[in-house]
Amino acid sequence: MSANTVLFDFTIDPSRIGDDSLRADAVKLIRSELERIFSDLKFTYDMHTVDGYFVILSENKILITIRFYNQGLITINIEYYLEDAEESKLNFDTSKRLENTLAKKLKVLNGQILPPIKRGNLPRYFPSSDERIIEYDIDKILFEERSEYQKIQIVHSKTLGNMLILDELQNIADVDLIYTETLMQRGIENYKGKEICILGGGDGALLYELLKEEPKYVVMLEIDELVMQACNKYMNSICGDVLEKRKGDNYEIIVGDCMDYMKRFIQQERKFDYVFGDLTDIPISETPTGEIWDFIRSILEHSFKILKPDGKFLTHGNGSSCPESLRMYEDQLKLLKPPVKFTTAKAFVPSFMEEWVFYQVSLA
Amino acid sequence: MSANTVLFDFTIDPSRIGDDSLRADAVKLIRSELERIFSDLKFTYDMHTVDGYFVILSENKILITIRFYNQGLITINIEYYLEDAEESKLNFDTSKRLENTLAKKLKVLNGQILPPIKRGNLPRYFPSSDERIIEYDIDKILFEERSEYQKIQIVHSKTLGNMLILDELQNIADVDLIYTETLMQRGIENYKGKEICILGGGDGALLYELLKEEPKYVVMLEIDELVMQACNKYMNSICGDVLEKRKGDNYEIIVGDCMDYMKRFIQQERKFDYVFGDLTDIPISETPTGEIWDFIRSILEHSFKILKPDGKFLTHGNGSSCPESLRMYEDQLKLLKPPVKFTTAKAFVPSFMEEWVFYQVSLA
Repeated sequence: MSANTVLFDFTIDPSRIGDDSLRADAVKLIRSELERIFSDLKFTYDMHTVDGYFVILSENKILITIRFYNQGLITINIEYYLEDAEESKLNFDTSKRLENTLAKKLKVLNGQILPPIKRGNLPRYFPSSDERIIEYDIDKILFEERSEYQKIQIVHSKTLGNMLILDELQNIADVDLIYTETLMQRGIENYKGKEICILGGGDGALLYELLKEEPKYVVMLEIDELVMQACNKYMNSICGDVLEKRKGDNYEIIVGDCMDYMKRFIQQERKFDYVFGDLTDIPISETPTGEIWDFIRSILEHSFKILKPDGKFLTHGNGSSCPESLRMYEDQLKLLKPPVKFTTAKAFVPSFMEEWVFYQVSLA
Repeated sequence: MSANTVLFDFTIDPSRIGDDSLRADAVKLIRSELERIFSDLKFTYDMHTVDGYFVILSENKILITIRFYNQGLITINIEYYLEDAEESKLNFDTSKRLENTLAKKLKVLNGQILPPIKRGNLPRYFPSSDERIIEYDIDKILFEERSEYQKIQIVHSKTLGNMLILDELQNIADVDLIYTETLMQRGIENYKGKEICILGGGDGALLYELLKEEPKYVVMLEIDELVMQACNKYMNSICGDVLEKRKGDNYEIIVGDCMDYMKRFIQQERKFDYVFGDLTDIPISETPTGEIWDFIRSILEHSFKILKPDGKFLTHGNGSSCPESLRMYEDQLKLLKPPVKFTTAKAFVPSFMEEWVFYQVSLA
């Protein structure tokens, strides 16, 4: 059960909206086409707006709002509640036919109809890195809770398996081994006998994959206990038993603020061969300022203080489609003292439905 | 310039909607949060609906419709026109913050906000095979015309290059070599010295790739002249010069109905080693009936009449996420006389953003 919102839009000669009688013709035409589907359609309300005209038609529980913009655009929004077993009068095929007929009768080339947007039951819509909308084939919520730090959801996708969603952003799915392998540069970096620190990494995937490479010791610093509990229960295909065990001969997970522990490591002069930044993504923002960027800079600075001179800082960047955000991150890298050099690697991450950029940073 | 539609929804205890005073509280709360962004918000209209309550708030050119469903759902739709240079008061970040605050104040866990839906200027939204909505990073329309057969658009995507869109469905993009290679089973099938017939294939990609394999002769039967003209102009990275030349030593393109030509070939007893079905996708329908399925059956029957006994019929199927549609196609294959056997191949097609299934059919 969910509400469906069906969105149509038509680009039209602006004069046909500005002129009262031509616009009335368009309303009549749209209404008569809608009446082929909704036979009992009633005129419910209308108003002139500062930039056009607005009308509401309704039939029983179906509410249709039609907006005419003086710039030459008509938007039609049809919304109604659909019970689970209920068949919609307006499925995507019916909608496409309606769009087609309306486009022809309104004599416009540019008509568009979107697949029905389903609202209210399952989280299905997540943004790409450049904020495009992507609908996932989610059929179940497995876990949903707000921790002290974030909203945690684990959902099931028919094609991607279980997916971890943090604050409404997709994080990692069962099918995303390529994400972890690109982050850790499997086959390129050699972890055998190495000392490694993971900042974040609460889904456990990175730790699980690193342990297969026989490192000397891995310490993982994750702040959110609840993320680990949820992933341990529902994401075992990517994290194995590392979140269940929390500690083994050559690894331990510490629940706490990674910044505090890095400071402690600096005091102790404890050094690592690799530090992984598996925390928040690089934000999309106009300028590299604000709390998140301060955090990113601070993470970088502290990481290099706990790295051996030939150590590496490995992290995920952002989508290839966000070159500005990536450039801002690289600008931050260039400001680091002592100076660093970096390489990048790219991989198409299945559950992101886009290509992602990863960074490998070391002292210059 | 386009209209933006921003959609929020909140799942709430149904009793808080059924009760007039609790619902009034919710309206007040939502309004006061919206007023932090739209300071001059006015109450414009309200009505009781058969399944709840509906209210319109507005500020200047911003129209906000809020619908309360008795089943326990609140949907908020915010729509306004945005000129090209204009900054929206409600970008995705602001929206996310608003959703977050509202979810907390309404004391609901399930709140959702979708990235703003942009309407009216560029075609950006195309459905996956299972009718999920996917927004593409389209920044330009290169070609747009209706032919006798279909609506043809060629658009530019920032990450996928030029894309051919037929009747609002994505067909092929610059980056989709894997599509053509999986369709033709490059590296598995041997085309050297072979006779080949392509049914459809108007984008030219299949013909272009086949010619690299030194076939004896390829005849391509495409009905839509305009598709070929458009692709010849804008899709050269996938079709080379084959649509420009139309004819060479070992190939020709015939503009016409492939069914007519197949009948002619049957009369002439002209036989091929390979026939490619590069026409409409297998439809998504409840049952394998109707005009399109008749067409699919007829194509299959005629194809095997122009194939040599050891010849192969190669075609694209549908998305992996549509098992019912694929099964229906396979059922049709099983009904063919003389009987056939088939294999399948899968590939993730970049511009489809999903995995696609391809068929290789031969006499049993």
